[in-house]
Amino acid sequence: MADQLVWMSTPHMDPAEFRRAGHAVVDWIADYWTTLAQRPVTSADPPGTVAAALPAAPPTAGGEPVEAVLADLESIVLPGLTHWQHPGFFGYFPANASGPSVLGDLVSSGLGVQGMLWATSPACTELETVLMDWLAQLMDLPHRFRSTSTGGGVIQDSASSATLVATLAALHRASGGRWRDTGIDRRYRAYTSVHGHSSIEKAARIAGLGTDGIRPIDVDPDSQALLPGALRAAIEADLAAGDVPAIVVATIGTTSTTAIDPLPEIGAICAEYGIWLHVDAAYAGAAAVCPELRWSHAGLEYADSYCFDPHKWLLTGFDCDAFWVADRTELIDALTVLPEFLRNAASESGAVIDYRDWQVPLGRRFRALKLWFVVRWYGAEGLRAHIRSGVALGDRFAERVRADDRFEVTAAHPFSLVCFRLRADDDTNAALLAAVNATGRVHLTHTRVAGRYTLRLAVGSPQTTEAHIDEAWTLLAETADNLRSP
Amino acid sequence: MADQLVWMSTPHMDPAEFRRAGHAVVDWIADYWTTLAQRPVTSADPPGTVAAALPAAPPTAGGEPVEAVLADLESIVLPGLTHWQHPGFFGYFPANASGPSVLGDLVSSGLGVQGMLWATSPACTELETVLMDWLAQLMDLPHRFRSTSTGGGVIQDSASSATLVATLAALHRASGGRWRDTGIDRRYRAYTSVHGHSSIEKAARIAGLGTDGIRPIDVDPDSQALLPGALRAAIEADLAAGDVPAIVVATIGTTSTTAIDPLPEIGAICAEYGIWLHVDAAYAGAAAVCPELRWSHAGLEYADSYCFDPHKWLLTGFDCDAFWVADRTELIDALTVLPEFLRNAASESGAVIDYRDWQVPLGRRFRALKLWFVVRWYGAEGLRAHIRSGVALGDRFAERVRADDRFEVTAAHPFSLVCFRLRADDDTNAALLAAVNATGRVHLTHTRVAGRYTLRLAVGSPQTTEAHIDEAWTLLAETADNLRSP
Repeated sequence: MADQLVWMSTPHMDPAEFRRAGHAVVDWIADYWTTLAQRPVTSADPPGTVAAALPAAPPTAGGEPVEAVLADLESIVLPGLTHWQHPGFFGYFPANASGPSVLGDLVSSGLGVQGMLWATSPACTELETVLMDWLAQLMDLPHRFRSTSTGGGVIQDSASSATLVATLAALHRASGGRWRDTGIDRRYRAYTSVHGHSSIEKAARIAGLGTDGIRPIDVDPDSQALLPGALRAAIEADLAAGDVPAIVVATIGTTSTTAIDPLPEIGAICAEYGIWLHVDAAYAGAAAVCPELRWSHAGLEYADSYCFDPHKWLLTGFDCDAFWVADRTELIDALTVLPEFLRNAASESGAVIDYRDWQVPLGRRFRALKLWFVVRWYGAEGLRAHIRSGVALGDRFAERVRADDRFEVTAAHPFSLVCFRLRADDDTNAALLAAVNATGRVHLTHTRVAGRYTLRLAVGSPQTTEAHIDEAWTLLAETADNLRSP
Repeated sequence: MADQLVWMSTPHMDPAEFRRAGHAVVDWIADYWTTLAQRPVTSADPPGTVAAALPAAPPTAGGEPVEAVLADLESIVLPGLTHWQHPGFFGYFPANASGPSVLGDLVSSGLGVQGMLWATSPACTELETVLMDWLAQLMDLPHRFRSTSTGGGVIQDSASSATLVATLAALHRASGGRWRDTGIDRRYRAYTSVHGHSSIEKAARIAGLGTDGIRPIDVDPDSQALLPGALRAAIEADLAAGDVPAIVVATIGTTSTTAIDPLPEIGAICAEYGIWLHVDAAYAGAAAVCPELRWSHAGLEYADSYCFDPHKWLLTGFDCDAFWVADRTELIDALTVLPEFLRNAASESGAVIDYRDWQVPLGRRFRALKLWFVVRWYGAEGLRAHIRSGVALGDRFAERVRADDRFEVTAAHPFSLVCFRLRADDDTNAALLAAVNATGRVHLTHTRVAGRYTLRLAVGSPQTTEAHIDEAWTLLAETADNLRSP
């Protein structure tokens, strides 16, 4: 191609330099992935180490080659990272990267289009709509979530944002359509289990309900799942007090233990009282690509909205949350604002989707591309293989735990998170976690189950194999040998 | 490197394939940029064209090479895009891409780390803090916005989200700290000019104020800037009615005409009444990297928060909004939620920044990398050259308009947006816009100035040169020749 074309009015990186530097960055990433397992998962450096290694002021002249930045990445940034793609990363939930996703997102950066309206880049909107319908098919979601029915899907940055827009649509419904104009003019209430994600409280706070507007519902002590009877009692108490129940957020796969709230019972209660049901399956939703794991989604037909994060366990890089609504008009009605500069014939025809009305920000990146690259490269079978691998590795780890009398598995592990603990006090378990993490070979996190300190091992990195699971177990078992209960 | 390493438990794209496909994608982008000027800026295809060209169901088997997806990109996606990086793209405000930004973001995708907490990837947080301090220096922002003072900066996805978090912090302050718990328990009010961005209304709605909670303040008919006297009158009327003024959003560079609200007067009013002042400089803030344009930021020392979008006019790809607060504790206090699974020693020491408490979502991508690549490649002088080029090209266009008696420039053009119209009725101007856009050579948008239909030409694409400006003008002038006023 005509790389020598004089095409710019001020000095910019020309296509020839972009090719050269781009190949170098691609190679750098491939090298990073190849050598990742040899690095410590986490950094042991104290706060301020990275900042202290950087100049206090930006460069005046510029012109630094990309290779100079890559060298600083290597020497300054990498030692200060927690490596989420490391095969020994078992913390939180995974945040998958994959080659196809990285390349799809690279195309998005290169195109630099902005899909706030259909008219501002029609293909950006239409590819997203098609991809969300594809995902709905892959997961066998209720038909009304499809764009060809009354609903539709949209990519949000995160499940936090999905919960927030669901909350807003729910308030609009609960107010009888007044909320958009009058705001919070009564006491609205949101319900979720005590293990509902912190983003549910945050969404309620952002929406103006306050933390007091959240009703934390008790869970079954065995399953850690929301108790429908407690939900009903809370709703009835609020109604009796003159408050307005607006939204119930149920979870498929809680952050703490991957508990599954009983959607059939919860859904029936929501239907009875006309309350919006949002289902947060941020991590575990990906499991629904496997038919044998779809039991976890039983009752989803009651949901008004649903989300899961392809960026957690479905090989698509952050940020990519897949959010569906059963009735798109309710969502759009709640969120639309139409200033003059966004008026256009396509929008006014009603024949197109303007995704800005489905989310908090106005602007939007072409995120469907990374999902498109992932689904085409892996296909349905490849995605299922990844999920099945995670579940099998989790089961393998749980077997090791169960085979050692010093340990116990503290919760069911239907997906790829295993919660376990030493049969010892909380401090000993905390010491075990700190000791294994300090080796830099693994990174685990903790939670509390029935009040007791519990370790969490979440599988999901594409690089994690049986050998890494066995190594993690050996490390835990040997470290436990060296710990003395106080 | 050892690309042959058996490192994965299920089939994933191995490093060798990633190198090969990655080079192909980089080359594809370079080719796209090189040939971009030859494409129509916008698509003429009707709604549904792209969707109809895609399979109705996802592939089962997978294994499609990246090249197959690139071929479909070429044949299906590109014809359906509005090309925001095209030299003839003059719509909205620019959304800059640049080589260094694309490569910095590629590194972010490849690392796949998640910086919700300092502890979840320390370098992700520390590089961001340093970059935001660099930008504050580059733009000579008030000292208290620096992390070394009482404030600090954070990257948001968009100015919409920046306005939202500013609104939330303002509500927390206005409520005397009750808001976080009790929610919206009184009538709070937000103020902005009638030309304030639609995201201000949307933020107020999301926060539970409702559209009724927004007080649109009149503007000066000449400058299109907010009238401080009208602001004071609105505040006093609300106070008299028992309502609580919570936030004023002033704009540097309105979307409609790049009007600049008088910050010194507005700031003094906010200080007098203790109202949070947020300054939205989404597009025009980038101009502050040029000392000769900093007059536009006079009075910023009054601001409690400020944002601009490097993804608009500072060569950093979407999404990258730079948001600062003068007192970080107010923001954090409003937004923090601390569930057990996020507790860690570093956070509890108080020695680190956890950016999750500065934004709506929990998760966050390593967006500082693209900004780092941009600032190092361009340097301060390169960034200034880009801004100056845009201003000079805008001036050049405005001169052409002024030299033709049939046209008039309808607003001051301190940056790179020129508002202009035919001295004819609204329908004729709308017809002119439709006709030039239909050629596919340019893409302009419209607004209303003092009620009259006005065309907007916004310069900012790195590829736009004097030749493109002259070509756009010639096209407009010739098209006007062929239009008859009804």
